[in-house]
Amino acid sequence: MNFLEKKILSDGVLKEGNILKVTGFLNHLIDVNIVEEIANAFLEAFHGEKITKILTIEASGIPIAMTVALKLHVPMLFAKKTQSLNVDGNIYSAKAYSFTHKCDNQIFVSSGYLSSDDRVLIVDDFLANGEALKALISVVQQAGAQVVGCGIAIEKGFQGGGDAIRAKGYKVKSIAIIDKMDYNTQKIEFRQQNQ
Amino acid sequence: MNFLEKKILSDGVLKEGNILKVTGFLNHLIDVNIVEEIANAFLEAFHGEKITKILTIEASGIPIAMTVALKLHVPMLFAKKTQSLNVDGNIYSAKAYSFTHKCDNQIFVSSGYLSSDDRVLIVDDFLANGEALKALISVVQQAGAQVVGCGIAIEKGFQGGGDAIRAKGYKVKSIAIIDKMDYNTQKIEFRQQNQ
Repeated sequence: MNFLEKKILSDGVLKEGNILKVTGFLNHLIDVNIVEEIANAFLEAFHGEKITKILTIEASGIPIAMTVALKLHVPMLFAKKTQSLNVDGNIYSAKAYSFTHKCDNQIFVSSGYLSSDDRVLIVDDFLANGEALKALISVVQQAGAQVVGCGIAIEKGFQGGGDAIRAKGYKVKSIAIIDKMDYNTQKIEFRQQNQ
Repeated sequence: MNFLEKKILSDGVLKEGNILKVTGFLNHLIDVNIVEEIANAFLEAFHGEKITKILTIEASGIPIAMTVALKLHVPMLFAKKTQSLNVDGNIYSAKAYSFTHKCDNQIFVSSGYLSSDDRVLIVDDFLANGEALKALISVVQQAGAQVVGCGIAIEKGFQGGGDAIRAKGYKVKSIAIIDKMDYNTQKIEFRQQNQ
């Protein structure tokens, strides 16, 4: 088991409805040591890729994305979920269906901040159905930029989003892939990965 | 002029309605060098304060807060603007009036992640009317924890929020304080500060 799988077993909370609560270290209270280890694992997985920009989506992707950006000394761009006052002018946008809230969400990026020269690493905390990730990939494509790959902390493998994106030819590196989790037995099964 | 004042003059965009757009380096596309310099300035201002936790609010406070937390090796906690699925159980909450959207916003923090032993540095990208900052201070007080101080990147000094909080005895360190800005003349005046 790797560091994140261990942390999930020790500090994650399995709740009804396929919910894994990791607010204690990943998406509310942030454990900087765990996030640094995640960032280092992405650096290793995408070594030599000449990444020029990190892209994530607000809010819980930002801590990991920022840590990776600091280590690579490249800018970090976060997509917004609302078209706020200060994101005006030309934008790229894409739809992401939210299974949690059962509605289409839109994501927005100012078009001036992505160019066709960019080699983009997409980073997020969770990957489940892959809707957010597909929207982020779409935004990079709208800019004519290159998706180097996707770095994800926790993938809910049983929801299939990650494998569908891999099947399209994208490199998706998830530190922990959960293939099964069961609220009743409180068991979590991780996918075996070549480290 | 310090590094952030220079960056505001070179890359910020003054828009009608007292809006300073810094999406190109601070709250959409993130310039990691500028954010690192901001974080270093906070470390200097609050040196020796035995900070145990960094508190900010989603989303645009997170890049700066995360950078400070990484440097201090302490956890970072970000308040949420919605009471989402995964923040349940006991919470601290506080109201923050939004002058932009003309409504009361609520902020939420899981009560388990702040304790009375904590010495908290509050970090945010902007301080204008001080509503968000007052809500964050309230959350720390509800936990019986100590506010060590507040580190802000850009303060709109002419809106008075920062000085009102200083008058209550809190140390507020803002890297750039704008005392005047004028869309018609495109002039920005910074407050003189002892560096």
